[in-house]
Amino acid sequence: MGVHDECAVFGVFGNKDAANFTYLGLHALQHRGQESSGIISTDGKEFYGHKARGLVSEIFTKQVIENLKGDAAIGHNRYSTTGASSINNVQPFAAYFKDGYIAISHNGNLINSESIRHHLIEDGAIFHTTSDTENFLHLLAKNKSDNLQESLISVLGKVRGAYSLVLMTTDSLIGIRDPYGIRPLSLGKKGDCYILSSESCAFDLIEADFVRDVMPGEILFITHNGIESRQFAYETPAPCIFEYVYFARPDSLLWGKSVYNVRKKMGAILAEESMVDSDIVIPVPDSGIPAALGFAERSDINFQMGLMRNHYVGRTFIEPSQSIRHFGVKLKLNPIRSIVDGKTVTVVDDSIVRGTTSKKIIKMLKEAGAKKVHMRISSPPFISPCFYGVDTPTRRELIASSHTVEEIRKYITADSLNFLSLDGMMKAVEKKEFCTACFTKNYPIKLESEPAYGTPLPFL
Amino acid sequence: MGVHDECAVFGVFGNKDAANFTYLGLHALQHRGQESSGIISTDGKEFYGHKARGLVSEIFTKQVIENLKGDAAIGHNRYSTTGASSINNVQPFAAYFKDGYIAISHNGNLINSESIRHHLIEDGAIFHTTSDTENFLHLLAKNKSDNLQESLISVLGKVRGAYSLVLMTTDSLIGIRDPYGIRPLSLGKKGDCYILSSESCAFDLIEADFVRDVMPGEILFITHNGIESRQFAYETPAPCIFEYVYFARPDSLLWGKSVYNVRKKMGAILAEESMVDSDIVIPVPDSGIPAALGFAERSDINFQMGLMRNHYVGRTFIEPSQSIRHFGVKLKLNPIRSIVDGKTVTVVDDSIVRGTTSKKIIKMLKEAGAKKVHMRISSPPFISPCFYGVDTPTRRELIASSHTVEEIRKYITADSLNFLSLDGMMKAVEKKEFCTACFTKNYPIKLESEPAYGTPLPFL
Amino acid sequence: MGVHDECAVFGVFGNKDAANFTYLGLHALQHRGQESSGIISTDGKEFYGHKARGLVSEIFTKQVIENLKGDAAIGHNRYSTTGASSINNVQPFAAYFKDGYIAISHNGNLINSESIRHHLIEDGAIFHTTSDTENFLHLLAKNKSDNLQESLISVLGKVRGAYSLVLMTTDSLIGIRDPYGIRPLSLGKKGDCYILSSESCAFDLIEADFVRDVMPGEILFITHNGIESRQFAYETPAPCIFEYVYFARPDSLLWGKSVYNVRKKMGAILAEESMVDSDIVIPVPDSGIPAALGFAERSDINFQMGLMRNHYVGRTFIEPSQSIRHFGVKLKLNPIRSIVDGKTVTVVDDSIVRGTTSKKIIKMLKEAGAKKVHMRISSPPFISPCFYGVDTPTRRELIASSHTVEEIRKYITADSLNFLSLDGMMKAVEKKEFCTACFTKNYPIKLESEPAYGTPLPFL
Amino acid sequence: MGVHDECAVFGVFGNKDAANFTYLGLHALQHRGQESSGIISTDGKEFYGHKARGLVSEIFTKQVIENLKGDAAIGHNRYSTTGASSINNVQPFAAYFKDGYIAISHNGNLINSESIRHHLIEDGAIFHTTSDTENFLHLLAKNKSDNLQESLISVLGKVRGAYSLVLMTTDSLIGIRDPYGIRPLSLGKKGDCYILSSESCAFDLIEADFVRDVMPGEILFITHNGIESRQFAYETPAPCIFEYVYFARPDSLLWGKSVYNVRKKMGAILAEESMVDSDIVIPVPDSGIPAALGFAERSDINFQMGLMRNHYVGRTFIEPSQSIRHFGVKLKLNPIRSIVDGKTVTVVDDSIVRGTTSKKIIKMLKEAGAKKVHMRISSPPFISPCFYGVDTPTRRELIASSHTVEEIRKYITADSLNFLSLDGMMKAVEKKEFCTACFTKNYPIKLESEPAYGTPLPFL
Repeated sequence: MGVHDECAVFGVFGNKDAANFTYLGLHALQHRGQESSGIISTDGKEFYGHKARGLVSEIFTKQVIENLKGDAAIGHNRYSTTGASSINNVQPFAAYFKDGYIAISHNGNLINSESIRHHLIEDGAIFHTTSDTENFLHLLAKNKSDNLQESLISVLGKVRGAYSLVLMTTDSLIGIRDPYGIRPLSLGKKGDCYILSSESCAFDLIEADFVRDVMPGEILFITHNGIESRQFAYETPAPCIFEYVYFARPDSLLWGKSVYNVRKKMGAILAEESMVDSDIVIPVPDSGIPAALGFAERSDINFQMGLMRNHYVGRTFIEPSQSIRHFGVKLKLNPIRSIVDGKTVTVVDDSIVRGTTSKKIIKMLKEAGAKKVHMRISSPPFISPCFYGVDTPTRRELIASSHTVEEIRKYITADSLNFLSLDGMMKAVEKKEFCTACFTKNYPIKLESEPAYGTPLPFL
Repeated sequence: MGVHDECAVFGVFGNKDAANFTYLGLHALQHRGQESSGIISTDGKEFYGHKARGLVSEIFTKQVIENLKGDAAIGHNRYSTTGASSINNVQPFAAYFKDGYIAISHNGNLINSESIRHHLIEDGAIFHTTSDTENFLHLLAKNKSDNLQESLISVLGKVRGAYSLVLMTTDSLIGIRDPYGIRPLSLGKKGDCYILSSESCAFDLIEADFVRDVMPGEILFITHNGIESRQFAYETPAPCIFEYVYFARPDSLLWGKSVYNVRKKMGAILAEESMVDSDIVIPVPDSGIPAALGFAERSDINFQMGLMRNHYVGRTFIEPSQSIRHFGVKLKLNPIRSIVDGKTVTVVDDSIVRGTTSKKIIKMLKEAGAKKVHMRISSPPFISPCFYGVDTPTRRELIASSHTVEEIRKYITADSLNFLSLDGMMKAVEKKEFCTACFTKNYPIKLESEPAYGTPLPFL
Repeated sequence: MGVHDECAVFGVFGNKDAANFTYLGLHALQHRGQESSGIISTDGKEFYGHKARGLVSEIFTKQVIENLKGDAAIGHNRYSTTGASSINNVQPFAAYFKDGYIAISHNGNLINSESIRHHLIEDGAIFHTTSDTENFLHLLAKNKSDNLQESLISVLGKVRGAYSLVLMTTDSLIGIRDPYGIRPLSLGKKGDCYILSSESCAFDLIEADFVRDVMPGEILFITHNGIESRQFAYETPAPCIFEYVYFARPDSLLWGKSVYNVRKKMGAILAEESMVDSDIVIPVPDSGIPAALGFAERSDINFQMGLMRNHYVGRTFIEPSQSIRHFGVKLKLNPIRSIVDGKTVTVVDDSIVRGTTSKKIIKMLKEAGAKKVHMRISSPPFISPCFYGVDTPTRRELIASSHTVEEIRKYITADSLNFLSLDGMMKAVEKKEFCTACFTKNYPIKLESEPAYGTPLPFL
Repeated sequence: MGVHDECAVFGVFGNKDAANFTYLGLHALQHRGQESSGIISTDGKEFYGHKARGLVSEIFTKQVIENLKGDAAIGHNRYSTTGASSINNVQPFAAYFKDGYIAISHNGNLINSESIRHHLIEDGAIFHTTSDTENFLHLLAKNKSDNLQESLISVLGKVRGAYSLVLMTTDSLIGIRDPYGIRPLSLGKKGDCYILSSESCAFDLIEADFVRDVMPGEILFITHNGIESRQFAYETPAPCIFEYVYFARPDSLLWGKSVYNVRKKMGAILAEESMVDSDIVIPVPDSGIPAALGFAERSDINFQMGLMRNHYVGRTFIEPSQSIRHFGVKLKLNPIRSIVDGKTVTVVDDSIVRGTTSKKIIKMLKEAGAKKVHMRISSPPFISPCFYGVDTPTRRELIASSHTVEEIRKYITADSLNFLSLDGMMKAVEKKEFCTACFTKNYPIKLESEPAYGTPLPFL
């Protein structure tokens, strides 16, 4: 909570329901981005597309889906960033270049985007978006090779950063994960049809089988001749550990593990590390539920849904002039007095970013009668921003970057506060190779400088 | 699940934030109706209003709220019925009659609406909606008394059925609950300002205090002189027990009890009645969670969130030509394979209406690897439709009206199926006086004949 | 120019294209009202309807027309009055009353509307619009006769004012013109199908034959048994002479005469009365063209289109901060310098209401080089407002009500100004029996008092 | 009639009302394109823009205009071509390239667009529209010179065809007319502020003074330092003579002459060439009016507006199942029976393209009683399509490309038919240097091949 979502990519090759599957896949991946969505399909000759702001269920009508002809399609969900966001920035992007049509969906963030863009513009390129993703298209368009595989590998040699890509031409679907494999990308199959998806939960909805993760540094070329894999780079993998903590859906399989199980285990280890005597354990719903269940189980404390979540919350709410305490949080969460009144309560959440939400939750619980509130966080203190595609606040706004745990505890007015230890977290995920930069400042890809967002926007 | 929502009513008197509070109140009551909403306010002279289809968070903008002037307001959420529903039918209704302006919000259903309407039309009335609620306005407009209290009491003597009403004139707010008190209505207070709400959870959001339930057969007149109560009828109360089972929000206090606690207790008694050996207990989220927690606790079986709910589901989804198994349910629910695979699972849901959803859930769980699936329902078999304002299927469609428990078990392919007994349910609610007609066919208000819906619609 | 439009009524009985013909008829009558339109159709059982703000060509789609089933339909165009106009006020109105469905379209204005409404409200009626037209429905609903013809005649005995009505039940179409016949209404025929229309030009578009005018004080009942006429009142006819001057389309036949010919004759007689030496005669397009042609012909002065009209003008235009001279007029009219430069110009317009437009036109012509501008008006000075359905300014705003011709000439800065004489106008129309109240203050129907618009609006 | 409109370009530099003036200018030029419009403004730092489908009066609101900040702006109206037209193709186009922002509006058509585009794509350019106008931006972006003037002149050396361009950077406004000056472009001035407009009629509306035409092969650079002219090419001028015949507004000054006067003279010479005895002369409104007036004057035959035009016609009309004769034309034009009945009528129109409209008009006139209908066309037979920016039918569809005048007469069922001779037309325009290709097949710019429209569209 407090860290914004990122993006979802999806692609289908070889099924006449390609656009419809993509639409359902994007729906299943809606949690990764709610600001806008788009689908581009191909019938082998033309590209067809639709993009708009809003939820997947709102922007795609029967008519729209029917117009997205062909047996291949790619899609994208985008997270909400600034209000001024142009429709031009909504992915997938499509272009017509010397080899024909190409479309791209990107999850992640390049860290040398500014210098690439600068060189491209110097060389006569016209940019139509402010997105780093457009660089891929220009680099491809300028590449001299007439073999798309070679072109792609050459282009990937020039970009640095996090990218899980799904590309489409009129006769192929391509999946790419950056050399560190920072963002997820999975391969699925439904009959003869291949599917690429940010998370495996989308395969369930369309009844496809999960095949495997795309590997760090791997390109998958999917054509009517089948599937071909090439490894274009070899680095120590560093998949984002925060996907396990918060982003991914609990019903996804990520990097070989059930997200639900990993979260439960985080909660259990957290209980081992920082058990506290209390009457009940309650989660901050929905993301905190698995960890809270793990915590309650291990500590053998009664689990209750002491905070009710209202799922009808839209984009903006109009605050009354007579201001409501904890207004923003209250629209989403309401303590159930009959559960917490007179009780010592342990609240389990997945992370603390700014601390403001935790503070409001604790106040609401105390106003509802809780005698004591112990806060338990199923990840370590979040101390450093992500530069690989997660929309985090600046370091300044991250409360743990400048406050001790005790200072945070005081700020949020908890009776006690514990974070899961780094070791505990690594034990829960049972592997070593991860990007843990947000908790450790160990950035696997060196930053030249913090990227400057906001290249002038050729807006329309 | 499967029984549609009903309606929400709300009213505020004596606060310059009246329209904003009503908007927030309707948001908190969104679960009682998602099809359309409306607010009418008054500044003591004029009425101001806005009604539209959609969610509260979508249809009320800052500009709209600012235009709803004055220090009193009433609102209404409506459930989704047929697609052909006219905007004319969106409440609150307002009219100008001999005593000035009046507005009305109604939750419930009259059972002598047709004959009243017939008499009114014979007498020269022109109807503008197909709603039974319009009868109240015509009866008031035709009443000869020049005292609104007397008029109202006279009018209430003519209507039979379920009604929780919130009315507003330019200088008063009025709350009415029918003699049996079938639908809920609560009184709240925030400073000098009185609030009426279908459920108490709305008071929490606007930081008002819950005062008490409006009593069956009671009228509350709220003016600048304070609050006045009159009892207009005396019947044996028969509040709807299904509010406890499914409708009301778990964080509401209903008829003196926490809904969450009642549901948990239903689950606990269900466990006592029909415990079954299994590896895990899982709820059908969200409505089945409290009962499942009660069940798991009492049976001491491990509780898990084995079904993941997608909350982004919109109104309609476009099914692919290559049809997906259990499509409708799959959009909302996905089993978490890592939890259920290889396990004996007890699933707890609040009710079974048609049986189709349960059947799909059980199939999904088995496809995800569940060895056995035991279904436990935290209410008795639903055998008879509601005529008091709940949008239930016809008797024909209610699977329990014509099938034994064993037949239902076979239909839904459960390994075992148990419903909470009627006695068990009554024990959970700890009172005797309820309308339990949907479970018992004991209708507290005699039906003259099943009401004919669909009076010709003076549509526009 | 300057007098706003009024309304159009239309009806079709006995053709499966009824709704489509009504749509085309309303398009042909668009000049009589551009604010909003509506169509209601019937298939003998149900009513179907669509109403919206905007032009006929914008608001009716193929889908909408297809939904307007049946072989009878009525329609209405409404003129623009105030911005706050409710969609409730858009006609046709429909109601369900003791005899079944009825729909009504009304052109004209009742002068005893307030007292009727007052009595109806006292008697328990609930009003849903602020329109005087709703009175007809309530009076019908309350009438005790079970014969619609008798009911109607009884109701018409209670209302006073101007009304050309088209009514529809599920099995009949009814045309009514008030006893004075103030507003027009014509009967047409296309095969076995009867059509009622405010003006005959609509018959041309749908290839129906003009049969005759509906007579003052006549009701036409059109059913599957044919057409039946009843005379319900006998008064000296007083059709609106301003229809000839400005409202009606030049290609309509009104009261036995071609509107174009009458206007040309007005121009010719104006030339006889007030010829002036000039180089060219130019019209204020489009309404002034026929009179200008008549003037030019009779005076044997060269006719030119010296003012160019821009027909793309929408509802509102955004004025620059650096204000443009004669902004409003300039958006619609532009002088052609090459025609008027250095010339003595006679400008012919149909009427002067406030004088502001004439003043701006003359200034534009002089700025474009006209040496002298003589203004000739093809009707007498407009001195008194209309209370029979034309949206005229108040008397105060009518420049001719308080200024002599010489004073007006000075105000509009014309080098000379002449109006057609009353005798001249009567000579052009070749009949005596007309309502000429706007030119003479001789109101054929006595006003009790100037009607108060704005009964409190039970808005929705 | 029958030849579609083309485009309008407009630009303002040096006035805080720049966007508002552009909006009014586009309104005045609405006749040159009704499909879509756009404005881009600059405050010296950023670009601001708005583009949409629809009429100028519909798509620009007060809020939109206020957001178009700065003291310079350019705009564009586009004609309607295919329904599938992408919003991407709506001009002005903007881009960010090495020298900063640039925006462009284009009227005309390049004839070597395909080969330029091919080379650009080969060289790595990514196209975002199917418009030939985008070539200008890519050529500029790729040009190595760091002086915009030199860049532009170099780019203009590469393109062949018709182009009147208005470009804008953050600190300059640039007007360009191709070496042949095929499409018009005029310079205006309002105080210190310069204005560029397709036609001079737009200057009248914003009260700017007409300065002069931009010359063929001239570039005008307008900055805060004033205006600078460079001649970049010298060819025999060949302005489009069809602007005089049909496109331009009669109140515009084109190439030194009043459009109205030229049209009147065409009508007069037509009368000299092919006078015919008839009772009346009537125009096909609105475009045929000036020529008809010239014809009537010279032939001394009575002029009447025998065809009434309905200006409320929207985009599409729904035809009844019982088909109406001459449906499409009838929606726009209606004969006035009282004028034409029993008469011999001479109809004057500006041109005949397919012949279908003329045929329908003549049939309508005869159905309205005309004894004889003589058709007179104020331009020569239209025999060859335009490749310089006018949306003409293919040669195959041009009736005069394959039929003699007598054959056309028979087809349209006129009693006689005459076209203005080429000599007569040249006499009317009083100059020799024109592009008359549509009448003569003498194309001033050699076509390599007929351009292929429809490069694959990288649609979004």
